[in-house]
Formats: sequence, structure tokens, C-alpha cells
Amino acid sequence: MLATVLHAPRDIRFEERDEPRIIKATDAIIKTSVTCICGSDLWPYRGIQAFAQPTPMGHEYCGIVEEVGSAVKSIKPGQFVIGSFATSDNTCPNCQYGYQSSCVQREFMSTAQAPRVRVPLADGTLVATPGLPPQDLLPSLLTLSDVMGTGWFAADAANVKPGKTVAVVGDGAVGLLAVLAAKQMGAGRIIAMSRHTSRQKLAREFGATDVVTERGDEGAALIKELTLGLGADCVLECVGTQESMMQAIRSTRPGGYIGYVGVPHGASLNLEQFFFTHVHLHGGPAPVRRYLPRLIELVWNREINPGKVFDLTLPLERVAEGYRAMDERRAIKTLLLPDGIKQESRR
Amino acid sequence: MLATVLHAPRDIRFEERDEPRIIKATDAIIKTSVTCICGSDLWPYRGIQAFAQPTPMGHEYCGIVEEVGSAVKSIKPGQFVIGSFATSDNTCPNCQYGYQSSCVQREFMSTAQAPRVRVPLADGTLVATPGLPPQDLLPSLLTLSDVMGTGWFAADAANVKPGKTVAVVGDGAVGLLAVLAAKQMGAGRIIAMSRHTSRQKLAREFGATDVVTERGDEGAALIKELTLGLGADCVLECVGTQESMMQAIRSTRPGGYIGYVGVPHGASLNLEQFFFTHVHLHGGPAPVRRYLPRLIELVWNREINPGKVFDLTLPLERVAEGYRAMDERRAIKTLLLPDGIKQESRR
Repeated sequence: MLATVLHAPRDIRFEERDEPRIIKATDAIIKTSVTCICGSDLWPYRGIQAFAQPTPMGHEYCGIVEEVGSAVKSIKPGQFVIGSFATSDNTCPNCQYGYQSSCVQREFMSTAQAPRVRVPLADGTLVATPGLPPQDLLPSLLTLSDVMGTGWFAADAANVKPGKTVAVVGDGAVGLLAVLAAKQMGAGRIIAMSRHTSRQKLAREFGATDVVTERGDEGAALIKELTLGLGADCVLECVGTQESMMQAIRSTRPGGYIGYVGVPHGASLNLEQFFFTHVHLHGGPAPVRRYLPRLIELVWNREINPGKVFDLTLPLERVAEGYRAMDERRAIKTLLLPDGIKQESRR
Repeated sequence: MLATVLHAPRDIRFEERDEPRIIKATDAIIKTSVTCICGSDLWPYRGIQAFAQPTPMGHEYCGIVEEVGSAVKSIKPGQFVIGSFATSDNTCPNCQYGYQSSCVQREFMSTAQAPRVRVPLADGTLVATPGLPPQDLLPSLLTLSDVMGTGWFAADAANVKPGKTVAVVGDGAVGLLAVLAAKQMGAGRIIAMSRHTSRQKLAREFGATDVVTERGDEGAALIKELTLGLGADCVLECVGTQESMMQAIRSTRPGGYIGYVGVPHGASLNLEQFFFTHVHLHGGPAPVRRYLPRLIELVWNREINPGKVFDLTLPLERVAEGYRAMDERRAIKTLLLPDGIKQESRR
């Protein structure tokens, strides 16, 4: 089959790779209905995260089960399923505590920008939808594989509750869906930090009540101005740089909460300073599996429409264009169609 | 009056200083019944924390109110009071959220190893006991000014709840009282990390069910062995070094909680690594004022006896000996008697 491989920074190729097959009895093979490019894919694409050899790409996926291993019990061929970017047995103690992305058997998915994908630990990783979904729900269902679950975790980790004041650092797809999550959790006020008009617009559509265009200390100072000089109750850090983390910390009130989900790169915390902020810190790779049943329900009932973050749709064979568009911030997030509909769309 | 001044590393003097007086209308002057030396006093004493000039010492105190400023309403001369090491108005939003040690008017106390002490924001900082306390309760009441409240915050920040498995890093007075706090909060299992027999004994008396003598990665590995390979639910970091923080992180299960109250010195957190631990982090200077009413009740009713951490009692004029004994870890914590009883006791 033809699939996506990163050969060197900014060198994405759509090339021949072996068809996936059942390796372990707990595996499933999925025919990918839709897949996409993640903000975190840009780290190796930009050469910030090292990789030793040509690397298959992609960890967001949903589709039809084609085949299951002999030990797979609940997942059946023909089902439409969504899985997390991190595999999980969903039975180990870490899974039972709700941290399936720290499952003792965890593997990170990395071959999903392809027409077919092998999913390990199928019973624990995949969740089937109530039936075959209508075509128009596919983008939103796909977001549940990572980006929507990650935004949801940011809000959950930051202790968003009804009436709270929330600030969101980062206007990428995760940040925008963190706004949507905060809205769903009943936040009273949601301040999106964004400099891009089109992203501000989507943030407002998802529930943002205020927009702050400034960054860094200037941005944090504005958050304080909007919150009686205190800082927000809950700050959702959706970038992962030193600057964005400092912006988040300085935007949080003493005793407030940061949920951080941007994979940190070169970021560290000076504990001598952090100690005196009284800020709660929690985050990590989102335990998407924990949220999948609830989020599928919300999408299925058309209560949320996270698929709106896709503002570029390409056939999978043009995946390299999708990376370029996101790298240059021309697109928020690129949806990839493995087959069938070959048309390109631009919102 | 004669009081305690640090002139240079390891140069503690008991020397003439001005009597404290009311400076602001919200001040009170306390006649110190008992005071003591804090583990955090050892940072400047050891030259690890810089100070520019001779510095009065002490931030743990309780005693009789002698005089109050004209704006003081609830605190009255003649009352026996306990105050936090951090002053607070107890009315600002940070105070209302329970973070009085981040009060917008906060000052850190630093003149309490003295026979008399000025306490700013008296109404918000001080809490009176139900009456004049019997002599034997003084040590326990004194601990509520910082060390017991700090141990309590460590347990609270680490989300200790009935049945949880708790590990305590640090066997200083804070660590030992963190054990006591965890016990009071209903922890199912409390693992004290301590290499000192006498401290292990006190930890067990306060409620520790297990003792781990190893430190660092070896200590963390043993915590995992005791917890089905997972790590503890709640880890109380009561030291403040890079080593102790790493020990705490590696002892916590994914999704578990660290409450950190040891003032960090030279410690930082690599967020790229911390991200994948899924650990919750919260701490800072303990909001002692939040806990004072409840802790006074527990001591008053003789339900807890945190004063047991004092294993050396000296007349205040021999304060330098007290610092030496703690610096050399011959004493866990030194109680200082400003007047009256001039005898020395050694448990």
C-alpha cells in the first residue's frame, strides 16, 4: 500500500509500505476512513524532534474493522471504531485509574496516515460507534482519536467547573477544542489567547467569551486585568514551549490550575519560582480512551462539532501539501482522505 | 530586648535589638510564649540562601497579645494567639480561596526568635485559642504556626483521602508531621522514607505503617515494590532539593499526586520528562491560616500531639546551640523558651 513516511525534516513522502497484518492475537486491522495531521507531527517535521530513520507517520484514525486477532473479543469486523493515539489494555491499574495513556502495555501509534492500520490491544484501545456513521460526522469522530480528547483533558486537568474563568494558551486545533471542552464543562468565562483572526472566530464559535491577542508577559498581564488582578482559575496550556508554559503560569491565580497538554520541547520549570505561585500543575499525554464513550455520544447526538477545526481536506496522496500548509500556519488542521472522495476542499 | 540575628553563615547571635512597636494600625505586639527553629532557617544559616546584612530570624510563634493597633478589631490584649509564618488579611480573593500565604498583603515573618514580636495584619493572621492553654500544650500549639500546618498542606495538596497509599519524602519535622496529617486524613498506608532510627520511631508513632530507608532511585524502586509496581497515590515532598523532588516523582503512580512543601533550592523540573509521568503537582508556602482553626481544635482536644517533634528545648539565649544541633542533625527541631523556664531538656 502507499502510505506516509518522513525521511528528513520537511521531507514527507507518500510511498510503498508493507500492508499491515495481525502480529499479536490482540491486534486489529482497520481500514482507515479518515486520518489527519497533528500539531505534534510538526515537531519531527520541523527537525525539532530527532528521528533516526525514515519514519511512518500518523496517530489519529477511525474506520472500519477489517480483521481481528484470535484473542480480540469485543471488537468485531465491520464495526466503525475510533481509537486513541496511545494503545491501552484498559484493564491494568493505570487504566482503571483513568490514565490509559500510561497503560503498562502502552504503545504510541505512528502508522495511521495510511489506508490501513494495525491497532494493538484492540479491545482496550478501540471504541465502536453505535452504528456506521453518516459521512458528515467523520471529521468530528476523527478528532476524538486525539485532538478533541486532548483539549478535553486540558480542561479536565485544569479543573474546569461550572462558572470558572478559563484562559487558553495556544490557538492551534488543540487550543480551539480546549475552548469547546471548557464550554461543555460549564466555564463562566473563556479567554482565548490568539493573534489570528480566523482562529479567534472559531474560538468564539466554540464558546470563547474574550480574546487576548498579546503573548508572553504582556498577555498574562491582560489576563490579570480581566480577572481583578488575580489571574484565571484554570489555564489550559496547549503549545508546549518554555514561553507558552511561562505565559500559562503567569496567567493563573494563586491556587489556580494549569492543565498542560502541549508536548513540551526544551521546556523546564524553575521550582524555586514556581513554588511561590501556588499553581496546580497536571497534564501529559491525554487519556483519550477515558473520554471516548462520552465524546462519541456528544458527536453522535450532534451536541458538539469539533470537526470544524479541519480547514483543509486533501486526498491522502497529497499528505506532503497538508504538512506544508500546517507548518506555514496556512491551515489549522488537515484532514486526509485515504480513498473514495478525491476532491480537495478548502473552508 | 535581646533577640536572634544571623550575621553570617553559622554566625547566630543573641543580641540587643529594638523592642517591636505598633507601626501600622493593623499590627499587634505579642509576648512570645514559645518559639523555635525551622528547617528553612538552615538554608541561610548554611549559606545556601544569600542574605545581604545581619538578619533577624524566626517565623514560628505563639503567645499573649500585649498591644494592638487602633484598627485591630477581633484580636484583643490578653488573648493567647497563634499566627502563620505568612501574614494575611484573610479577606482578599486569594485568602478567600484558601491561599492566605499568597494574600495580596502578605509579608513573611522573620523576627520571631525573640521575646516580643510585631505581627502585621493581626486580625487576619492570628487565631486565638479557646482560653489560656495549659503549659504542656504549648509545644503542640507552636507547631501550628508553620511546621504542622506545612505537613498538613503537604497531605492536602497531595490529595490524601481515606484509604490512599501515601509516601513521605523527608524525615525532618515537616516530613514527620506530614505523616501525622496523612494519618488524620485517613490514609490506608503511610510509607515514611527515613534512614534515622529515632525519626523512624516517631514516624511510626505518628502513623507510618512502613519505613523505607533507601533514597533516590533505589528508594523510589522500593516504593514501587510496595505498591504493585505502580507507585504511591500521594507523595509528600518535604525537603526541597532536586534529589528529593526526583525521588518523589519516581515514587508516584501515573495520575497520582505530589504535595511539595520543602522550599526548593536549586531544583528544576524537566517538563519533557515530567509530562509523561502524569503526576499532579501542587505545593508552595503552606496556607497555615486556612488550617489553624481545625488544628487548634485537634490539639486543644488532645487528638494530636505534634509537639513531639521538639526533641531539644533551650532557653532562647542559647539559640545558637539550637541551630548547631539541627544543622548537625542531632536534633529534629529545637524549642526555644524566651523566659521563665530556663532549664534545658533533652528527650
